[in-house]
Amino acid sequence: MKLLELVDRAALFKDASNYAHQMQAVNLSQGLPEPLFDDEMNSVLVTQLVEGWQYADPRGERIIRERIAQRFLPGGCADTDVVITSGCTEALFLALMAGRSEFGNRVIFFEPFYPYYPGLASLCGMDFVTVPLASAAPVGGPDWGLVEARLREGARILLLNTPHNPTGWCMGDEDWKQLQALSATYDFLVILDEAYQYYSYETIDSGSLPERSFRWLSAGSASKMLSMTGVRIGWLLGDTQLVESAYARHLYLSYCQPRPLQAATALLLDTLTPQRIDGLQTLYRDKRDRLARTLTAAGFQIGLPHGGHYIMADYSQIAPQMEAHRFSQHMAEHVGVMPLAATPFYLDGRHSQVRFSFSASRPVLDEACRRMEAM
Amino acid sequence: MKLLELVDRAALFKDASNYAHQMQAVNLSQGLPEPLFDDEMNSVLVTQLVEGWQYADPRGERIIRERIAQRFLPGGCADTDVVITSGCTEALFLALMAGRSEFGNRVIFFEPFYPYYPGLASLCGMDFVTVPLASAAPVGGPDWGLVEARLREGARILLLNTPHNPTGWCMGDEDWKQLQALSATYDFLVILDEAYQYYSYETIDSGSLPERSFRWLSAGSASKMLSMTGVRIGWLLGDTQLVESAYARHLYLSYCQPRPLQAATALLLDTLTPQRIDGLQTLYRDKRDRLARTLTAAGFQIGLPHGGHYIMADYSQIAPQMEAHRFSQHMAEHVGVMPLAATPFYLDGRHSQVRFSFSASRPVLDEACRRMEAM
Repeated sequence: MKLLELVDRAALFKDASNYAHQMQAVNLSQGLPEPLFDDEMNSVLVTQLVEGWQYADPRGERIIRERIAQRFLPGGCADTDVVITSGCTEALFLALMAGRSEFGNRVIFFEPFYPYYPGLASLCGMDFVTVPLASAAPVGGPDWGLVEARLREGARILLLNTPHNPTGWCMGDEDWKQLQALSATYDFLVILDEAYQYYSYETIDSGSLPERSFRWLSAGSASKMLSMTGVRIGWLLGDTQLVESAYARHLYLSYCQPRPLQAATALLLDTLTPQRIDGLQTLYRDKRDRLARTLTAAGFQIGLPHGGHYIMADYSQIAPQMEAHRFSQHMAEHVGVMPLAATPFYLDGRHSQVRFSFSASRPVLDEACRRMEAM
Repeated sequence: MKLLELVDRAALFKDASNYAHQMQAVNLSQGLPEPLFDDEMNSVLVTQLVEGWQYADPRGERIIRERIAQRFLPGGCADTDVVITSGCTEALFLALMAGRSEFGNRVIFFEPFYPYYPGLASLCGMDFVTVPLASAAPVGGPDWGLVEARLREGARILLLNTPHNPTGWCMGDEDWKQLQALSATYDFLVILDEAYQYYSYETIDSGSLPERSFRWLSAGSASKMLSMTGVRIGWLLGDTQLVESAYARHLYLSYCQPRPLQAATALLLDTLTPQRIDGLQTLYRDKRDRLARTLTAAGFQIGLPHGGHYIMADYSQIAPQMEAHRFSQHMAEHVGVMPLAATPFYLDGRHSQVRFSFSASRPVLDEACRRMEAM
């Protein structure tokens, strides 16, 4: 992958936001969540400044590692099976690098994919192969037979994003069973990208599996979980040996995250009680439903996402001939709402799809919906 | 390089500090500076929390990029020639990755070296070759003829740490001239590791060269400059094209640093007036001189460092047979002062040297000196 392409894929988000601003359109192109925790963060942070600004434990301060281990690791795992990273981005980079040294340089992920995946693979010197997610509504999962075919061909790392960006698909009980079944035959690593953990709106949660028969790493972060995309507190956890291998590399990359930010984030995690998570899910489910109704009424074809922050919308019945990038600009110009062209989520960009985010605050989302209702 | 070795080289610092704590010895093993700016940081940060905790510009917020460009880049260079990184560590990683794609996979650095260099090269898939620094007192520089020999053999990247850790050597006018002269014959990249910028105690400063005839990148950070090793605000600047190549990779690693921390650090940089830098240099020069007198009187052989935070001390006249790691523990047990065995600074660990830091506060350093005066 060319360097320019690395930058370009990342730049598409910013370009769309800039265009929205220029057109005074409501910006639903970027996954910039309403800052639900910023005020609490500021209050808590002031109490944690005593931690000072000198080197933190590069593995992560104990105050946060303990909470992460307790919350996300099966019983018996220690906080040494956790590394605190610069957001989910570094966690995924480290996971791929650690995975590569043991499982080889080919990684499988689903398509559409988070646009960073090809670049991450490229930076790690890895090849990737994709498996399509079913395009049928409701938002579909993969054909696990195709995953098996990729494993048979020699790929031994599966990078699995659940809840999924951009489609909102979530691993269900049946998917976990299929994955477990594959592990009886194939020796592979599952890297779970759980950036949108807790943002699932149906009964099945990705964290529901009691035991995993395959080796795994999980990447998560405060970015979406606590609506603080810029605090850069992420985590990588799971397989002891692979976490250690990731940690060795982390020492030479971001090294550590600031102590006061780690401590404050740890205390914010304590506020994520089941009741509060339920409240977040209700808030987001209502926003999803409002947006879904509006999009359907406006003539988009959508699958209702089970999780995440986005709805993928097919606009082929509205503007059959229009290219996605042009359609998103057209929306900004004529409707006053800016979605994101789905181009960077696919290897082959020719899909009549745009992605709408419902992570904006309710008033912003309502204004976007009113504008689209007048389409 | 084995993964375990990556961790081990980094762990030596922590192990020494732990041993110092255990022995109730004054800890001069680690480069943990007295936190001269922490109180100011906390005051300023509180005023910058309005910046919020959402994604920052991944290139770096303009408020800090502009200040870095103005302060460290020759006239005419723009703030787009700067990327804000997670400390000097990520900046060096990015510089090597960017350099590698254009200048090949062999890097030269001086020995003794900052213990992270072999690991950084290894993670970037690079080979390294070393050139010794003169061991004569005062702390000596390299034989530039040997640097030329390495260039002739095909290495095209020079990773140059000035002021130098651990020896305190600084590039002087004559060194810069030699380097410029080499660039008339060889096409190479110089990566300047300027982590200790401003901490030079003689007339020649590494920033004194008006024009550079070779292509270069410079890595710096707030870690030592503002005595905030854990704030993780670093920067990479220089050659436009290589900075762009580094930026492409940065997008997939730490991605961005928190906005409030960038803004607060920018405002702290404003307080670094020439008068204040002069004051810092005087403070550190006095600490250096105090420590140097004590070490000499105690029978160590030292070269007076021109910069940085450390004195390398040869103990062969005190304990001719003792291995360095054992000697540093012996110091902790019997004198109550913990230096760092110089082993990780060399490929071949058999040197009768330990490194003492003078970055501790004056009272702590005085206590260490009193204990050593009773040796």
